[in-house]
Amino acid sequence: MSRSSPIGRLYGVGLGPGDPDLLTIKATKILGAASVVAFFAKKGRRGQARSIVDRWLRPACLELPLLYPITTERHFSDPIYVETLRAFYEQATEAIADHLNEGRDVALVCEGDPLFYGSFMHLYVRLKDRFAVEVVPGVTGMSGCWSAAKIPITWGDDVLSVLPGTLNGPDLAHRIEACDAAIIIKLGANLGKVRAAIRQAGREGAAIYVEHGTQEAERIIRLKDKADDLAPYFSLILIPGEGRRP
Amino acid sequence: MSRSSPIGRLYGVGLGPGDPDLLTIKATKILGAASVVAFFAKKGRRGQARSIVDRWLRPACLELPLLYPITTERHFSDPIYVETLRAFYEQATEAIADHLNEGRDVALVCEGDPLFYGSFMHLYVRLKDRFAVEVVPGVTGMSGCWSAAKIPITWGDDVLSVLPGTLNGPDLAHRIEACDAAIIIKLGANLGKVRAAIRQAGREGAAIYVEHGTQEAERIIRLKDKADDLAPYFSLILIPGEGRRP
Repeated sequence: MSRSSPIGRLYGVGLGPGDPDLLTIKATKILGAASVVAFFAKKGRRGQARSIVDRWLRPACLELPLLYPITTERHFSDPIYVETLRAFYEQATEAIADHLNEGRDVALVCEGDPLFYGSFMHLYVRLKDRFAVEVVPGVTGMSGCWSAAKIPITWGDDVLSVLPGTLNGPDLAHRIEACDAAIIIKLGANLGKVRAAIRQAGREGAAIYVEHGTQEAERIIRLKDKADDLAPYFSLILIPGEGRRP
Repeated sequence: MSRSSPIGRLYGVGLGPGDPDLLTIKATKILGAASVVAFFAKKGRRGQARSIVDRWLRPACLELPLLYPITTERHFSDPIYVETLRAFYEQATEAIADHLNEGRDVALVCEGDPLFYGSFMHLYVRLKDRFAVEVVPGVTGMSGCWSAAKIPITWGDDVLSVLPGTLNGPDLAHRIEACDAAIIIKLGANLGKVRAAIRQAGREGAAIYVEHGTQEAERIIRLKDKADDLAPYFSLILIPGEGRRP
């Protein structure tokens, strides 16, 4: 964090699953020294990542909000969606590069772990050859959820699969059947399809649904007790392994 | 952590991948208030978990080492191995229960995340119906490793599989082929077999070997550049996904 270097350093800082006490010590140290905090948010909202880090920032810390373009009406296979996102990532990259070039260290904060399905990665690949980058891992959302639910997730030689709910139903069912433990992420509008796939794989009885894990609005319920198919995008389903238990 | 309750509370505290700065704030708070710290270790060694937490404990904190029986000469399918471990877990359970019954809060510390392939789970299932238990998630070893290696591990709709190196070769090869991103854990004496399986799946070029990730002895190397098949048990191999990147 030395200011003697003419070029700043980029930190990708994982913030964990939502509970502000689940930040790492390393994350708090980097936040407390950063010249700029960059964060992804939706227009008009401060965003959860920014709220979590508030207590750790210096008063002089500059803010760089990276506002997602509105893409909810478009599918990710739509070329306009891809182009819109690409332009957004390019713009965000240059906004961060400007600070780094002026010698300011930038902490780009990320919910969960920066390199695990994180938006950070799209900026990282564009910046890593131009600037020094350090990545601070975080507790993943899924760790937060299985801890909140107190569900041991993998035992002994269990195989774990992390499966996006965006996969098609038969593929999902096949993959759930083929593993010992599964986490199904990115539920949102996919929950009905995901539920059918879990049922087809014969695992509905073991499945636990978690939304807002480790946060105030936390809700943990057996999937078969959940009457509707409404789910936030970042909710997930846990199917625990049953491996070796001496 | 109130002493007014006649019965203590058990905390399963994840310590993260090894770097002491990767403890969470929550972990440090619980350690700083605990009456007893319990930790798994090999006989004659203090163990890494115990060393990491040293700075956070109260001087009056009692220590409860849980010493693994020596089982390295036996395979986990051997009934004597199973019985030895079972007896060890029962004994450890009662040692912790004694403290809890006397009103002392116990922090059972665990490298990585307590509910992800953790020894904690074997005590948790034996204690959870008798005592109040709280689980504090930790940064997993695999998150620590991919962050240290600066490898984005999963993009977009990538499927991630966590595969124990103890699986048989053909099964491993098939599973590596079937997923987008893979983490192969529990290497040790399995590395030769694992390497052959990765090669068979056509993924050797992308595989990264990491040992002691986030620790002083950290070593990160492309698998194809690693000349020998010697590996600590807790080393791992990362095969990153290649999913959607606008």
